[in-house]
Amino acid sequence: MSGPEETGGSALIVIDMINTYDHDDAELLLPAAEKVVPVLAELVGRARDAGAPVIYVNDNFGLWRSHHGELLDAALTRPHGDLVEPLRPDDDSLFVVKTRHSIFHDTPLSYLLWQLGVGTVVLTGQVTEQCVLYSALDAHIRHLDVTVPRDAVASIHAQLGSAALEMMERNMDARIVLAGEVEFRGTRWPLAEE
Amino acid sequence: MSGPEETGGSALIVIDMINTYDHDDAELLLPAAEKVVPVLAELVGRARDAGAPVIYVNDNFGLWRSHHGELLDAALTRPHGDLVEPLRPDDDSLFVVKTRHSIFHDTPLSYLLWQLGVGTVVLTGQVTEQCVLYSALDAHIRHLDVTVPRDAVASIHAQLGSAALEMMERNMDARIVLAGEVEFRGTRWPLAEE
Amino acid sequence: MSGPEETGGSALIVIDMINTYDHDDAELLLPAAEKVVPVLAELVGRARDAGAPVIYVNDNFGLWRSHHGELLDAALTRPHGDLVEPLRPDDDSLFVVKTRHSIFHDTPLSYLLWQLGVGTVVLTGQVTEQCVLYSALDAHIRHLDVTVPRDAVASIHAQLGSAALEMMERNMDARIVLAGEVEFRGTRWPLAEE
Amino acid sequence: MSGPEETGGSALIVIDMINTYDHDDAELLLPAAEKVVPVLAELVGRARDAGAPVIYVNDNFGLWRSHHGELLDAALTRPHGDLVEPLRPDDDSLFVVKTRHSIFHDTPLSYLLWQLGVGTVVLTGQVTEQCVLYSALDAHIRHLDVTVPRDAVASIHAQLGSAALEMMERNMDARIVLAGEVEFRGTRWPLAEE
Repeated sequence: MSGPEETGGSALIVIDMINTYDHDDAELLLPAAEKVVPVLAELVGRARDAGAPVIYVNDNFGLWRSHHGELLDAALTRPHGDLVEPLRPDDDSLFVVKTRHSIFHDTPLSYLLWQLGVGTVVLTGQVTEQCVLYSALDAHIRHLDVTVPRDAVASIHAQLGSAALEMMERNMDARIVLAGEVEFRGTRWPLAEE
Repeated sequence: MSGPEETGGSALIVIDMINTYDHDDAELLLPAAEKVVPVLAELVGRARDAGAPVIYVNDNFGLWRSHHGELLDAALTRPHGDLVEPLRPDDDSLFVVKTRHSIFHDTPLSYLLWQLGVGTVVLTGQVTEQCVLYSALDAHIRHLDVTVPRDAVASIHAQLGSAALEMMERNMDARIVLAGEVEFRGTRWPLAEE
Repeated sequence: MSGPEETGGSALIVIDMINTYDHDDAELLLPAAEKVVPVLAELVGRARDAGAPVIYVNDNFGLWRSHHGELLDAALTRPHGDLVEPLRPDDDSLFVVKTRHSIFHDTPLSYLLWQLGVGTVVLTGQVTEQCVLYSALDAHIRHLDVTVPRDAVASIHAQLGSAALEMMERNMDARIVLAGEVEFRGTRWPLAEE
Repeated sequence: MSGPEETGGSALIVIDMINTYDHDDAELLLPAAEKVVPVLAELVGRARDAGAPVIYVNDNFGLWRSHHGELLDAALTRPHGDLVEPLRPDDDSLFVVKTRHSIFHDTPLSYLLWQLGVGTVVLTGQVTEQCVLYSALDAHIRHLDVTVPRDAVASIHAQLGSAALEMMERNMDARIVLAGEVEFRGTRWPLAEE
């Protein structure tokens, strides 16, 4: 079982923040998202500076023919484009499209993390009590360490969001911290293209 | 278990034909690919005419930031671009990126087929004794019916290709036919975007 | 995609109730388990009377060589065997061993439900905010309908248990009911052995 | 990603040899199985002597309530019980029940190998061009090293069996050897029970 999985570096995962905010419950999500965006933008910057991979994992909103440029354009031109602009992926950002639910379900993320030698995922974005919770579980099952900065995840229902964080801490061995406390360890990023 | 899975339509799956042909064994694959391309181009046309979804499932060649346009451009501009041009996806084509191996492994294809109401996958492309074989197995495990037109799949080693077709027929209940014999049944394609 | 999955019957799933109650947090779980056992015993009886399959899905507590008889014996002879006795599997009960987490993760349960023609799973047992929650998510992802009788599931932390039920209802389309409200629909159970 | 996966020991996997030999194609399989049994019995003995885990992975023949004792009894009492007796699991053998196809599909084998610190699986048993081939692929996808002793696997169709071995060697990085060449490296077996 030799291979790239041994370095134990960190990756910053940004979940569903390339968003049109026109789904059900968007009005409930927006106040939390507005608080999270500047915190997360700062965290993305620190990950880039530390040489840690930043991986956007995002629903495709049913746009099966779309690539991330189209998803990004769709999100930037909506009324809440100001929540997307500060988190715009740069040329080094990785982008994984998911269908729904966990960031691992039917996506190549496991394989990508293995290639990168990532042992710790820093989960950020939305929604705390949905995708973030499900993704923490799937990461834990895959023997990855999980860190969740509580000020960089957004919930629809504050109480369920708090419960989700407590579940992650108690039952999935997640470290619940503040964004300012996250430290990134190096990986073999950037990958030489195969 | 209600849902869209009930119609039992067909989808044409085109595996790894958006290809730069610069990998190991490419020289062994090219003669077979050259024979397959015109047959497959004709089959793609018939699927489009019948209203059946055409789904390209393709390796990303390590281009994690890439969308299908970049993959297509990369392939079209190589010396064997003439093998890609006749199979160029049109605006209605669906595109799923895989990392390696089966078309189902760590991809959203299962979910997409379920949404489309597809019960039969018509597997075409390359390599018969690798991705096509692995994909037939994964389709069979998922209770999908499998059809493989033997003149629309390309092998690296002719003998292993023949053995793979025999394995699919004997052990995975696949129908092995000629491309001219494939008939497409309708699905709920095109999807209304969610 | 023809096959046995079409009847849409119900199965009663009993999660981790064959239990030695000697793990961490057992003292927190016991009061809830004591309330659940008689309710669940009655529900198991009604499922049997209705001809619905009763499927025990249970951790193996590290006993890799064990079969369900050994797991049952181990549990019955512990100080809390009185919580196991009323739920003792009968000769028609099905038994699936899981390693940890969801009832679907690395188990044959999906395949078994498909064979049985089950479209609705009635999830019972423990722990509400752990295995039951994770299993509801995995059932939802697999397009199964989920019913959870709130008086037939036990939590370690009452507040997290309530939050878990609310997550299942809001985000996984689960029906949260009382055990007395559950109605079982027939399946093709018992299976003719293959 | 710390954990037990680091030692890189070997496990001997015995596939579908606890068998009633009353399925379709059994008559075609028997001559090959008869040659394999004594070679495999010797290899099982050497694995035990070396302290390597011996893991039986076996279809349940539809006996969902069964444990390995019942499967073993069923197999021993059939006309071909003499092919089962020399491979009888001892008290230290591990036993994993599969439904069909690969040894990894919907089984806890991945988790068990991870706990044991196994990096190399030695695949033996039957059928070369079916379960053994599918299992080699799934092991390769999981970044496990694969060794297949060609005289310890049995095929139904000799030509497809040979093709399967060639596919494993060429396309799944498997080492194809003779049983006498297999060397076992230690693992953290036996596991302390959790």
